[in-house]
Amino acid sequence: MRVPLTRLHSFVTDVFRAVDVTAEHAATTSSRLIEADLRGRTGHGVIRVPSYVARIQAGGINLRPDIVVTRQTPVSGLVQGDNGLGQVVMTLAVETAIEKAAESGMAWVGTVRSNHAGAAGVYTEMAAAQGMIAVYLAVASANVMPPWGGRDRLLGTNPISIAIPGVDGPEFLLDIATTVASHGTIKVLAQRGEQMPEGWVMRPDGTPITDPRQADEGFLTPIGGYKGSGLNMAIGLLAGTLNGAAFAGDVIDHRAIPDREANTGQAIFVMRPDLFRDLGEFTDAVRTSLAELRSAGQPHSVKIPGDLARDRQKRQLSEGVELSEAVAAGLDSVADQLGLGVALGD
Amino acid sequence: MRVPLTRLHSFVTDVFRAVDVTAEHAATTSSRLIEADLRGRTGHGVIRVPSYVARIQAGGINLRPDIVVTRQTPVSGLVQGDNGLGQVVMTLAVETAIEKAAESGMAWVGTVRSNHAGAAGVYTEMAAAQGMIAVYLAVASANVMPPWGGRDRLLGTNPISIAIPGVDGPEFLLDIATTVASHGTIKVLAQRGEQMPEGWVMRPDGTPITDPRQADEGFLTPIGGYKGSGLNMAIGLLAGTLNGAAFAGDVIDHRAIPDREANTGQAIFVMRPDLFRDLGEFTDAVRTSLAELRSAGQPHSVKIPGDLARDRQKRQLSEGVELSEAVAAGLDSVADQLGLGVALGD
Repeated sequence: MRVPLTRLHSFVTDVFRAVDVTAEHAATTSSRLIEADLRGRTGHGVIRVPSYVARIQAGGINLRPDIVVTRQTPVSGLVQGDNGLGQVVMTLAVETAIEKAAESGMAWVGTVRSNHAGAAGVYTEMAAAQGMIAVYLAVASANVMPPWGGRDRLLGTNPISIAIPGVDGPEFLLDIATTVASHGTIKVLAQRGEQMPEGWVMRPDGTPITDPRQADEGFLTPIGGYKGSGLNMAIGLLAGTLNGAAFAGDVIDHRAIPDREANTGQAIFVMRPDLFRDLGEFTDAVRTSLAELRSAGQPHSVKIPGDLARDRQKRQLSEGVELSEAVAAGLDSVADQLGLGVALGD
Repeated sequence: MRVPLTRLHSFVTDVFRAVDVTAEHAATTSSRLIEADLRGRTGHGVIRVPSYVARIQAGGINLRPDIVVTRQTPVSGLVQGDNGLGQVVMTLAVETAIEKAAESGMAWVGTVRSNHAGAAGVYTEMAAAQGMIAVYLAVASANVMPPWGGRDRLLGTNPISIAIPGVDGPEFLLDIATTVASHGTIKVLAQRGEQMPEGWVMRPDGTPITDPRQADEGFLTPIGGYKGSGLNMAIGLLAGTLNGAAFAGDVIDHRAIPDREANTGQAIFVMRPDLFRDLGEFTDAVRTSLAELRSAGQPHSVKIPGDLARDRQKRQLSEGVELSEAVAAGLDSVADQLGLGVALGD
């Protein structure tokens, strides 16, 4: 099913408005979710609306938060999220970082008492659209695996995104979980009724799980074994602990425990490339190197991080946002429960 | 073989002095190489002395470089390495970043026209020893794998190190290549006559290579497939391209082509944790979270990045630096060729 961007945005905004989210926060959250769908990060797109609504209805989100930037320096700030919606908290964090970096050259802004903020690449893209390099780190909103060599689930999928600007938006945009698979991707497969490859999830005894509906019985696995496990911890310490946000045993599953504050933490680092090289010279050099990498598989083209997302984004902006039947049905069902009297197919 | 630290340092310094390296540069390079050995990163320790000497003798290193920090702002700088020894260039970069971060809160310093600088963790450790968070990125000094989905070797092992300070030095120190194995580790196995596990190196047709002496016939593999490949590219763009240093097709193998300038690039980011939280509160929280992760494998202890290195470092500082017979023989052979008239066993 294809839904025009503006139609989907007003539909999702209306859903959030119906559970008493402010107009501004509803619009911002809707934008960030749909931007994830546009990039093909469907696991962090509007598929999340039903669980967000459930959390709001359970009282797990502060709908009138006082979100403020504290501990400010010319290069840093800590956004006190006051348990508001994660997309709203993170949007302020990115905007603050971009503004400070424009002035000071670079900035690192952290969040505390935030919530699940969706796709990592949505935030680095905002900075890259302003011609800036960006790195995003987040503590994921559920613990899904043990540290390498352990048995107790104390780590999430802790994602990292790195964007490098081109002349017009990101020329390179990496957006990865530090687990082999992400919870969002597994959820999409479950909704489609498809199987997972071996290696994504394993039982405590080491045997693989391939049915995504049984994923909770096992552990996700980190990329590169102890290396990905270590990278995952570093992200948790820098996006969580550094900000006073939850990490390790303090992380709660935001869907399983919808009524308790999650104290999620994120971090965004933004830097002007012209600190090191004139901007045009830099974007030319990036383009040349990436073109070389793309042609490393002649006769077929090698995909660079962000290439597929850019193609999907262009296509969906002109042709409408592609939603699976399951996702569209989930949205319609929420709208129906809330008595909105509309359906996406109308 | 165990060699007291001061003895090994003067031996290696003398070797570099014998090929006309200045006293200061010889001492700095020797320190950084031995610090890698102390941490157990033997692939980037004094094992490298013979190939460094070969590169110097071939004219590939500028022994009287004019190393200067250019494009300075309160938060950034670009070290023009003038093709000097990599350890000397990177030491200035870290010292510059620490000084700027102490003043401004954070700093990012890049290098251009640098050379192979050894173990990533040596540089982040210098910042963590000053109570600062540090991230190090480098373009590796040889291309060993294609971008994911390609066939042409255009990417190196591009390492990343992340250090989080404790009360006394790094509490957490990740130091990883973004390939499953590093060239240095493979070199150590080759010297020991041991085999590599499957998955480290594969032939273009996808079959595994397990003899480390045949590693050059295949590709290294990135951690997490396309994810590690993308992370590797991001490191190359940020440590290389951003500084005007080599990346992708511009990278030459610094050992295979010892007489040509390599234009290696590195980057170090240093940040004061007290931008976000009072330092004591932060180090306490880090310690608590890591203790929790260490006990996630009861009854045995889970190792956190940096734990094994810290133990090795302590032991070797008191008992002497452990060198394999092959590494000791390599050093003795170089000293002999240079007519130094000394051996490590003397």
